[in-house]
Amino acid sequence: MENRALNVVPFVSVDHMMTLVLHVGMERFLVELAEYIEEDFRRWPVFDKTPRVASHSSNGVIELMPTSDGELYGFKYVNGHPLNTRSGRQTVTAFGVLADVGSGYPMLLTEMTILTALRTAAMSALAAMHLAPAGARCMAIIGNGAQSEFQAMAFKALLGIDRLRLFDIDASASRRCAANLGAYGFDIAICRSPQEAIEGAQVITTVTADKQHATILTDNMVGAGVHINAVGGDCPGKTELHRDILMRAEIFVEYPPQTRIEGEIQQLAADHPVTELWQVISGLTAGRRDERQITVFDSVGFAIEDFSALRYVRDKIRSTDFYDRLDLLADPDEPRDLFGMLLRHAAKHSAA
Amino acid sequence: MENRALNVVPFVSVDHMMTLVLHVGMERFLVELAEYIEEDFRRWPVFDKTPRVASHSSNGVIELMPTSDGELYGFKYVNGHPLNTRSGRQTVTAFGVLADVGSGYPMLLTEMTILTALRTAAMSALAAMHLAPAGARCMAIIGNGAQSEFQAMAFKALLGIDRLRLFDIDASASRRCAANLGAYGFDIAICRSPQEAIEGAQVITTVTADKQHATILTDNMVGAGVHINAVGGDCPGKTELHRDILMRAEIFVEYPPQTRIEGEIQQLAADHPVTELWQVISGLTAGRRDERQITVFDSVGFAIEDFSALRYVRDKIRSTDFYDRLDLLADPDEPRDLFGMLLRHAAKHSAA
Repeated sequence: MENRALNVVPFVSVDHMMTLVLHVGMERFLVELAEYIEEDFRRWPVFDKTPRVASHSSNGVIELMPTSDGELYGFKYVNGHPLNTRSGRQTVTAFGVLADVGSGYPMLLTEMTILTALRTAAMSALAAMHLAPAGARCMAIIGNGAQSEFQAMAFKALLGIDRLRLFDIDASASRRCAANLGAYGFDIAICRSPQEAIEGAQVITTVTADKQHATILTDNMVGAGVHINAVGGDCPGKTELHRDILMRAEIFVEYPPQTRIEGEIQQLAADHPVTELWQVISGLTAGRRDERQITVFDSVGFAIEDFSALRYVRDKIRSTDFYDRLDLLADPDEPRDLFGMLLRHAAKHSAA
Repeated sequence: MENRALNVVPFVSVDHMMTLVLHVGMERFLVELAEYIEEDFRRWPVFDKTPRVASHSSNGVIELMPTSDGELYGFKYVNGHPLNTRSGRQTVTAFGVLADVGSGYPMLLTEMTILTALRTAAMSALAAMHLAPAGARCMAIIGNGAQSEFQAMAFKALLGIDRLRLFDIDASASRRCAANLGAYGFDIAICRSPQEAIEGAQVITTVTADKQHATILTDNMVGAGVHINAVGGDCPGKTELHRDILMRAEIFVEYPPQTRIEGEIQQLAADHPVTELWQVISGLTAGRRDERQITVFDSVGFAIEDFSALRYVRDKIRSTDFYDRLDLLADPDEPRDLFGMLLRHAAKHSAA
């Protein structure tokens, strides 16, 4: 990747991303990715933070999520189309670009469907390291779709979670999740209700897919001392927790202006107190304060996490062959002579 | 391109774009591209119009320019870094994506450095078809950088301009422009001043690169009846025309909220009357009204023009081989089983 031609941008395809993840090892990938996220959260104030740019339609949404730390610029393209599964497509797909702020030149183009699944899980586990009760071993996962196994793996890698209690309204999803995780040493129970799933769990991950105000957990179900990792409520009109749980919990968020619109806290007053996670990770404020406290990480996903993931992939593909070289940038010998480049191209072809 | 696998996105590299342009023929490419832009300008109100999302730094800017017509979504990534030429890089590079609004799936990834040069020129010529005096044959081009030859070719293809009067503060730029255009049948004069360049020209194209409030044309230089195609003043702090010229001209713009910040009219009051070009192209209002009028197309470049260019390229590469197939989208057999796709990838590799 060193001394590359100026016109070439490294491209990590889906196939290369899978190879990279397996080459690094998924647990190590998640741990290192969490370290990159942590590093960026510790320098949160330097980032150029803008709300995502969304284009809504009747079927779904297409979003661009840009951010910059002044040296690097990253953006992710991501869609959300719940009906896509009917045509064999994924609900969410994504790709992203990392660029050099100094020249504006893209440095990396990569698939981000798999990468987003990994960074979302790494983010959840990183938050839980500061928020989950000490010694947590058992996690309930309510909603056993595409994100569920990644959550389990990240909590295993970063917190040592080794007992899972799964629930999904579609029991086949739970069975698939359990089967996919079969080789990773979890003690797994498939449960028949959310209530059963959360029995004995110190961490509750909610990651359902319904785009509506659902109540996956009601107030009386949630006992003292648990950490709720609320991943599924991530757009306007989509929540998972009963409002009363939020009222007695301490709530941690990524970027308040976005979370108040998209997260669980859209159910609360606009001035309801929340704690910004970067302040916890930076040591500026406490995470969990006592063992009886209920903590909620109201996760919606923020551009800086994708930026961290792009940085990580850029660093990891160095000294590997897990990328292609895209001829993405017109780069004439004489920068002001774009037209001449076309003429030379024509001359070369007519000579050939 | 039909029946393609769901994970694959067609990619037009710089090399393929050059081949496509030469295969179609540059003049025909410009004419057809102008037709696509015209078609989209005629249905202007259906577009989702947002200002570009800019990330500024001391060296330049990186922008995302999205738009949608409700069926297709397009965005362009473009940078502007005037110091890039020092390191052999281009000032402006770009790439873009066209996506299906119904599924959110990208349908095309393409280089847009060359394509932007072509669409900018096609847009200028399209505007001039409605604004230039009838029978215009002679165009002055002030600023003979990378965009200049494309402007000449577009005005030749769409308006029949066959006489050029070139001026640049760097005479070698004018010589290069003249040499590059040598095979296209223009009568070309290289001039020693802007004043000399505009003698006898019915159209004046200003396309200089200085990022400052420059005065390429002063008021007394500009006689009645000309059309000024002001391409170079395209960001805050960068203008080319003296304010007094604007005060006695009728001004046509793409998208007023953007042009008032970026265009020549940043010199004028925020409520100075301007005409939206789409209304002229749609026949809702007149373009040039009489032969003595001075018209100005205050061009800054808008996302819809890129959208038209993306549509055009998508249509033109059909039934050609001028694209690659990028494995950009994770597409598991079972859409909810992203983790299982990784496991199957691992099994395949360990078996191999």
